Amino acid sequence: MSKFFSDLAKGLKPYVPGEQPKDKKYIKLNTNENPYPPSPRVIKAIRDAANSDLRLYPDPECDDLRQTVAECYGLDKKQVFVGNGSDEVLAFCFGAFFAGKKILFPDITYSFYPVYANLYGVAYEAVPLNENFEIIKEDYYKKNGGIVIPNPNAPTSRYLDIEKIEDIIKSNKDSVVIVDEAYIDFGGESCISLINKYPNLLVIHTLSKSRSLAGLRIGFAFGSEELMDGLNRVKNSFNSYTIDRIALAGASEALKDSTYFEETRKRIIETRDKTMEALKALNFEIIDSKANFIFISHKAFEAQILFQKLRERGILVRYFNKPRINNFLRVTIGTDIEMETFIKVLNNILVE
Amino acid sequence: MSKFFSDLAKGLKPYVPGEQPKDKKYIKLNTNENPYPPSPRVIKAIRDAANSDLRLYPDPECDDLRQTVAECYGLDKKQVFVGNGSDEVLAFCFGAFFAGKKILFPDITYSFYPVYANLYGVAYEAVPLNENFEIIKEDYYKKNGGIVIPNPNAPTSRYLDIEKIEDIIKSNKDSVVIVDEAYIDFGGESCISLINKYPNLLVIHTLSKSRSLAGLRIGFAFGSEELMDGLNRVKNSFNSYTIDRIALAGASEALKDSTYFEETRKRIIETRDKTMEALKALNFEIIDSKANFIFISHKAFEAQILFQKLRERGILVRYFNKPRINNFLRVTIGTDIEMETFIKVLNNILVE
Repeated sequence: MSKFFSDLAKGLKPYVPGEQPKDKKYIKLNTNENPYPPSPRVIKAIRDAANSDLRLYPDPECDDLRQTVAECYGLDKKQVFVGNGSDEVLAFCFGAFFAGKKILFPDITYSFYPVYANLYGVAYEAVPLNENFEIIKEDYYKKNGGIVIPNPNAPTSRYLDIEKIEDIIKSNKDSVVIVDEAYIDFGGESCISLINKYPNLLVIHTLSKSRSLAGLRIGFAFGSEELMDGLNRVKNSFNSYTIDRIALAGASEALKDSTYFEETRKRIIETRDKTMEALKALNFEIIDSKANFIFISHKAFEAQILFQKLRERGILVRYFNKPRINNFLRVTIGTDIEMETFIKVLNNILVE
Repeated sequence: MSKFFSDLAKGLKPYVPGEQPKDKKYIKLNTNENPYPPSPRVIKAIRDAANSDLRLYPDPECDDLRQTVAECYGLDKKQVFVGNGSDEVLAFCFGAFFAGKKILFPDITYSFYPVYANLYGVAYEAVPLNENFEIIKEDYYKKNGGIVIPNPNAPTSRYLDIEKIEDIIKSNKDSVVIVDEAYIDFGGESCISLINKYPNLLVIHTLSKSRSLAGLRIGFAFGSEELMDGLNRVKNSFNSYTIDRIALAGASEALKDSTYFEETRKRIIETRDKTMEALKALNFEIIDSKANFIFISHKAFEAQILFQKLRERGILVRYFNKPRINNFLRVTIGTDIEMETFIKVLNNILVE
């Protein structure tokens, strides 16, 4: 490795995102994007924000957006933090609350958590999910310097009841408990309602999934003013102006257009449930999903081979070559037509 | 401080950006923004990019933008790194090359450098500028783990000849030498021409100043492929998708419209030189500027008082209450009309 690198850089194990292929047009079910475009009101707000004010720095505190978000979720503006995608928000969280400590998160989960841990000198214990890929709350009743609970979990799609999460938060009053709710809008109940009760709770949201704005890079943390201060300390030691003027304008409008939001997320939930039925008929084992993706496995066909064959036929899904889940595929829910094609192509592969 | 904070968070001393006032309309000469709007081609490119593709993640590698930038500067795409403003790029640099080492930078310089140092556990020696606020190259001929040379320097506006910088780079072949050229387009000569000669050279640029895009958040690092790899290691341990689709589109177009760029930067240089003449006539001492701002001081009037009186009269400039420069004002170059108003108001204050 280069002699110029710091020991920190030498020790990193960077995250590898899902493919963004450029070679040809795929049915892209591999990075949990929303199959529907952003609200037309968002597009308009962005076009309106493309004006001469772009010469000026954006508001480093994102006041207007934070006010909109606060109103949307019944919070105070001081309980809202905005970042350049929820990945950046999570990175700041690891720096602000976990650096130098030992934390707990599930063994099967978002694979960026161990990467952040590495970046900020965080030790961690990967707590095994049970054989049904469920988080067992009692496993988190032990000494720790922080906890991350993704809900629904990824890539499993499994949802944990809010009552169980509340028990984890309650049992860990000296630790920050992060509930990463990137996929909560597809059928789960958000822990935002618990924020005024627990100063140690931090809830993470993103506009990349349920608001169809993966391309705009906006994520949030919700929590006590005390925790928001910690995030701001790290953010303002890193980059004062993380959110551009265009993203501020688009994000606000996305939160305001609740009609479009309700309509598209309902459509995705319906497509998901239909897809699950069809896959069961093909003898797939499917984890019960509350996300915009499903996690599937077939006793008679290796996931890695299915992944390859789907790819050859123009359909991208996600395969993780990791212990316990190396016979599963994570499949994003697309439009009805995309999912019908997916089922048809999959059926062809199975009967070949 | 909160019991939830990590030791890292507790030890931070966050950066404080210049005011972005919301109380009333000011002539804003305090954050070195460009007085001219972005190129009309940029506005159009952004509006065109506001489309249904926003539902998809952006290209995490910013391939198209990097290709455009490479062509613009006669580099290879592999010698270009893109970040969410040059502040983010600098933060990644400190992490990738300086963490755990001891570096050198001038005592009077961009006040974010010590903040990054603090975030990444970097020790530093603040090397004094001479009495004329000049960087003396020989001061950097000693053992170090890295060097940052801002050129032109901020807030002094002073430019260092590229030959002297080359001597510093040559004399420090085992250290990464960062040349932060945020203001280079206003009269200096860029070190980009030295990149193929020195694998330890890293040049930082931003679209916030000479391209009128402070509100879009785009910065670059240019350097050897080896150094770019280091930056990508840190970036991909932090946030895979740092640049949104809109910013990618706008930034590319900004670099392509060289006519608009040449015209606006020439105009700013002319206004700067006129402003300097007028201020000399008011007995101000002015550092010779190659930036889009000037650094001025008056023997008979305290800078802090001038700052206050200007503010009361609707003109914002920047005052730093720091040793050696606490009798100076940093004044961004605005339009001709803004600068004429500035001179008039200043004259009124002086004769009161």
